[in-house]
Amino acid sequence: MPARSDFCFCEETVRTLGDGEVLVKVLYISLDPAMRGWMNDAKSYIAPVAVGEVMRAGGAGRVVASRNDKFASGDHVVGMFGVQEFAIAHGNQMHRVDPSVAPLATYLGALGMPGMTAYFGLLDVGKPMPGNTVVVSAAAGAVGSVVGQIAKINGCRAIGIAGGPAKCAHVTGELGFDACVDYKSEDVRTALRRHCPDGIDVYFDNVGGAILEDALACLAMRARVVICGAISQYNTATVKGPSNYLSLLVHRASMTGMVVFDYAARYGEAARDLAAWVASGAVKSREDVVAGLDNFPEALAMLFTGENTGKLVLKVADA
Amino acid sequence: MPARSDFCFCEETVRTLGDGEVLVKVLYISLDPAMRGWMNDAKSYIAPVAVGEVMRAGGAGRVVASRNDKFASGDHVVGMFGVQEFAIAHGNQMHRVDPSVAPLATYLGALGMPGMTAYFGLLDVGKPMPGNTVVVSAAAGAVGSVVGQIAKINGCRAIGIAGGPAKCAHVTGELGFDACVDYKSEDVRTALRRHCPDGIDVYFDNVGGAILEDALACLAMRARVVICGAISQYNTATVKGPSNYLSLLVHRASMTGMVVFDYAARYGEAARDLAAWVASGAVKSREDVVAGLDNFPEALAMLFTGENTGKLVLKVADA
Repeated sequence: MPARSDFCFCEETVRTLGDGEVLVKVLYISLDPAMRGWMNDAKSYIAPVAVGEVMRAGGAGRVVASRNDKFASGDHVVGMFGVQEFAIAHGNQMHRVDPSVAPLATYLGALGMPGMTAYFGLLDVGKPMPGNTVVVSAAAGAVGSVVGQIAKINGCRAIGIAGGPAKCAHVTGELGFDACVDYKSEDVRTALRRHCPDGIDVYFDNVGGAILEDALACLAMRARVVICGAISQYNTATVKGPSNYLSLLVHRASMTGMVVFDYAARYGEAARDLAAWVASGAVKSREDVVAGLDNFPEALAMLFTGENTGKLVLKVADA
Repeated sequence: MPARSDFCFCEETVRTLGDGEVLVKVLYISLDPAMRGWMNDAKSYIAPVAVGEVMRAGGAGRVVASRNDKFASGDHVVGMFGVQEFAIAHGNQMHRVDPSVAPLATYLGALGMPGMTAYFGLLDVGKPMPGNTVVVSAAAGAVGSVVGQIAKINGCRAIGIAGGPAKCAHVTGELGFDACVDYKSEDVRTALRRHCPDGIDVYFDNVGGAILEDALACLAMRARVVICGAISQYNTATVKGPSNYLSLLVHRASMTGMVVFDYAARYGEAARDLAAWVASGAVKSREDVVAGLDNFPEALAMLFTGENTGKLVLKVADA
């Protein structure tokens, strides 16, 4: 579990901008389960953050200086700005967003990487068909909440898995899922069998561990399992693999990993759809805001203890 | 591990044939790892064999009596005849084969279900492309040996995994694989890294357990893992799931289960191709023959101790 002692807060002078670079005042920092993986010194889909480097993080902010023709002071932008108050990045590493369309923090949630992850993970990898039963874990989280709502838009039944009555009520209430399993108070496998009498057609997994096994035990024939994350396993020394993976054979099912970065060329397509859905209310976005850069270590830990509902962001400055 | 004490040998009188039925004298019985799964009282892709039933098995034999217009005495046929000397089955549950084209036992191997499993599992699920590196476990076995040879026919590199120098020599020699890892004397992961410097594009898994983990650790981007079987886990009370299944995420890879019965409508297509390849020598078939119905329990156990090379069959009668 990442702790305060794993980080140090340092001050340094903002350097002079190079050609094409932009200075961004960071207003919101995105807190994502994937960040825990970036802290492991192991081969993964992205290089680890080295000891001494600025912790990698997505963020949203306001341009305060620019040597790039495409950005002017006052523009609002989103990019991988790291856990810091000011970030310098090349203009081609950020994109402009419009805070009059949606709150800035939403561009880190439903209109940002979590929304994109849900969009491509569900539609491209999960390939849901109308009438399918789609189950998603961490259903009250940034990605899971959008997965279920996109499933509903596509004519599927959406069943969430989340921890605690408040999250489950949010998932079935505001987010409009058909049901939500409370893994803290119910036997997940029994509950999935009840809610999915014909089996699970698409399981979108954000958590791994025992809940992945429970879902594998309830697959429909030719089910698609999307491996998006495994938050239950990120702080364990030895990952628990699904002992019932042969359910894939029994059900002629597939389990496929996805990383949203692969879809960069199609972000525009997802952004248009997601913006329209957010505007129409078909996708509701919720951000869970923690204030103060100093609180970063504890805010990051909240992801792993399940304390957030919706997209967890750290508010660094007001404007 | 199935033992002699799990079976009893009984005699009963052959009953009168019903309309459409055929009496077959069984000459060869197929021994397949899947049979172990059929003995578990658990939901799977096929109903379990109940205590007291004739043990289910594929077989090849000769028609000795027929009340079906499509079959005459003397015809050679293949079907699910069970572990018995004579079988009665409806004509639509068997098909005629020609022992002048290939030895009868080959219709239980490369020209039978194992060949079909290799054909559809590799080509339809694994989707190998020319230049791909295809790795298959149990490479000296009935399915694995055909997988690698079809991979070669399709312009791929074929790397086998097998136990012991004799099997590995058979795999790289007679079967023409590019390399074979001896899991009994080499560290599989290290050897796979050496033989697959650009990673594994298609991994065809027949064994599960530690070797599946080793293969998952060596995937190329967008790799396809075909889950055909898990012979290392069939006699364990608790199956070991792959603890590094998140390699699927890192490599945007998929792991898909397959059962050959799903391809029944396309058996003809596979049979034509396989027969042509066997005739041309592009696919070499080898049967490992144990004689005597009485030896069934020990012959079945040979699969799990890895004693067979090629398709293991039990020879019940000469003709």
